[in-house]
Amino acid sequence: MTAASSLLTDRYELTMLDAAIQAGTHERECVFEAFARRLPQGRRYGIVAGTGRLLELIEAFRFGDAELTWLAEQGVVRTAALDWLADYRFRGTISGYREGEVYFPNSPILVVDSTFAEGVILETLILSVLNYDSSVASAASRMVSAAAGRPLAEMGSRRTGERSAVAAARAAYIAGFGATSNLEAGRSWGIPTMGTAAHAFTLLHDSEEAAFQAQVDALGPSTTLLVDTFDVHRGVELAVKVAGDQLGAVRLDSGDLPSLVKAVREQLDSLGNHNTKITVTNDLDEYTIAALSASPVDSYGVGTSVVTGSGSPAAGMVYKLVAHTDAAGEWVSVAKKSAEKATVGGRKNPVRRINSSGRSTAETIHVGEATRPEASDRELLVTLVDNGVVDQSFTGPEGVERARAHRADAIAELPDQAFRLGRGEPVIPTLYV
Amino acid sequence: MTAASSLLTDRYELTMLDAAIQAGTHERECVFEAFARRLPQGRRYGIVAGTGRLLELIEAFRFGDAELTWLAEQGVVRTAALDWLADYRFRGTISGYREGEVYFPNSPILVVDSTFAEGVILETLILSVLNYDSSVASAASRMVSAAAGRPLAEMGSRRTGERSAVAAARAAYIAGFGATSNLEAGRSWGIPTMGTAAHAFTLLHDSEEAAFQAQVDALGPSTTLLVDTFDVHRGVELAVKVAGDQLGAVRLDSGDLPSLVKAVREQLDSLGNHNTKITVTNDLDEYTIAALSASPVDSYGVGTSVVTGSGSPAAGMVYKLVAHTDAAGEWVSVAKKSAEKATVGGRKNPVRRINSSGRSTAETIHVGEATRPEASDRELLVTLVDNGVVDQSFTGPEGVERARAHRADAIAELPDQAFRLGRGEPVIPTLYV
Repeated sequence: MTAASSLLTDRYELTMLDAAIQAGTHERECVFEAFARRLPQGRRYGIVAGTGRLLELIEAFRFGDAELTWLAEQGVVRTAALDWLADYRFRGTISGYREGEVYFPNSPILVVDSTFAEGVILETLILSVLNYDSSVASAASRMVSAAAGRPLAEMGSRRTGERSAVAAARAAYIAGFGATSNLEAGRSWGIPTMGTAAHAFTLLHDSEEAAFQAQVDALGPSTTLLVDTFDVHRGVELAVKVAGDQLGAVRLDSGDLPSLVKAVREQLDSLGNHNTKITVTNDLDEYTIAALSASPVDSYGVGTSVVTGSGSPAAGMVYKLVAHTDAAGEWVSVAKKSAEKATVGGRKNPVRRINSSGRSTAETIHVGEATRPEASDRELLVTLVDNGVVDQSFTGPEGVERARAHRADAIAELPDQAFRLGRGEPVIPTLYV
Repeated sequence: MTAASSLLTDRYELTMLDAAIQAGTHERECVFEAFARRLPQGRRYGIVAGTGRLLELIEAFRFGDAELTWLAEQGVVRTAALDWLADYRFRGTISGYREGEVYFPNSPILVVDSTFAEGVILETLILSVLNYDSSVASAASRMVSAAAGRPLAEMGSRRTGERSAVAAARAAYIAGFGATSNLEAGRSWGIPTMGTAAHAFTLLHDSEEAAFQAQVDALGPSTTLLVDTFDVHRGVELAVKVAGDQLGAVRLDSGDLPSLVKAVREQLDSLGNHNTKITVTNDLDEYTIAALSASPVDSYGVGTSVVTGSGSPAAGMVYKLVAHTDAAGEWVSVAKKSAEKATVGGRKNPVRRINSSGRSTAETIHVGEATRPEASDRELLVTLVDNGVVDQSFTGPEGVERARAHRADAIAELPDQAFRLGRGEPVIPTLYV
């Protein structure tokens, strides 16, 4: 159980609760849906992330004395609502796309079936988690494709909020990164951690050679030495002198990487260090990674661009009421008509249409009373919370591994055009039937 | 005291500690400096934020049994380093720009004086907080200028990580926003919270009128009614019918705002609701806010753009070792020479040069043995932590109010060109002397 998450919420979720209690409408059965109207930046697909940690936060979404006292003092809601919140735990059902799943515009990524009151107060938390984590995973997945099998490490903790950093490490790992620099992500989610030394370590010592010697003494010759503090070729020479032919890797964090990597590889080979690897970490994103595909790089470290969603730091997901029971207990589909923000009402059953080659051809969304999916369709919704009980196989480190495996499967199903880096349309259409 | 923050850290900070202990260099006295090489996006100035909450996180930066056990199990560091971490609390001195201060390229925003070991392990946390919070405050400050005195509310919690959302509300408030939707920001930092209802509330009820009635029954006629779920003019008509001439405000969340706001103002006036205000919330940023300057808008609600730094979600701050004592105990200035990432070594004393009209003309940075500042210069560094003791006047809600007041003073000192929204150069130069 995580620390209380219940005030990580917009005030209006609670004032709506208060007003609905007053009106006697708070227990109407509802269907809420989280989706993104579009993919950011002309991307071809997105990756769902955050689901597993969201489930843990929903379990921790309780109002204790501290929260209730503060809400009362501030006059946010009145007594009836305070009493309701004191007893709150989510008792509804949540289905959704598996974490790691591919998504497209209007894919109903999360579907909450509950009373209005129980579902509405989770809105802010659901969107905070899905928007940030999916933003990171969607960007990370493109970097993984661009790296074409070479390993990637996430090292952007310093470029995002200190708690978002942990979520970013998790989302990048789900999208196929192999490791993170973030220790809390290692502890909380079981993600492999990596890292050896920064320029400060070299500068602290009386010479670059003394710094390398100190690092090798502590971490062994298989460590990675950062060789660009002063002059790269002198740095490589010293690194090999100190660590010998067992030197694990050299790291380059500056300069024109295509030319530099080539020269460093030649230098290492000429010194007999054929097994010493080259890792690069200089403000990389999916485009610069792709530009290094012909260079003898062995691994990439990615910072700012992955933790900020490479230009799209929020995935644009929204959470909308699409159906509810009315005063007579009958189900009503609802939709708003605001300019450019119109929604499609009604409960939805999405499937991915798959052709005879096993590739996806459409995101097909059955609205309302579902027509039967075709036999080759892949059903997209799974039950995450069943009448208040979270399926624990989606949470914790186990959930992360499961999501990472699922992302690999889901990606393999996409048409090849999905992996083009340039702007374009979603690689398959979203069809309502 | 906040929850333990010590693993919100890159692994390499701890492996450097381990290696420095092995080499006997970990207790060398050091000066580390946090600064940004450039302002993002051709902006004219930046706003420092995060300092107050960083100080609280530094106080909570301790390694308890849970952290030490995990580090030992994972083999991150060896016994000597584990023993050192068990005793760790920061005992050094930190000076820095006041929270809310204006900054420019290379402004030494935070200066840490400590042993290498004590200072290096704080790097990731310091940068996570300063980068994210300053990104938000720098964007928010431009929005505040663009709003030209009209109030702004931050409501972007759902568009950033759930804990970053609290930091974003705090940073926006420091930069001059008047309120936030985020309840935890209200509780933790004393920031005014706001919000009434979303489209879901209207859709839940049997009619728009029934929804408005429910809201007015619960929150009173001075509430803000969201009028664009179906048809704006019908919505305004119903809002006035239900709430009467005491209706507080109507909210518009879609459409072409300049034309819509004008029409709604005319409609409200024609209905006699001259005191009913108009608030707008449709994907605003500094540019769309400025574009509404001639429209009868009364207040703005800003979401995605403020919490994601309006195109620059990380402020680009780095943390560099600039001086240390050597084996003989003598101070040495150090700098790296990496391509495009060269740093200026030595301890620095920054001042803001002020002309006879009270306006700033340069960011003047004295390096090493400081020349005397001129009498009209404003000193920029204040002591935040004195030999391990945090100045509590910078923390908590008091620190937030102090930062907000300081930002207003610092902004008033800038030349008028600082407030141009278009791309350009920093409004004053950074000069080394």
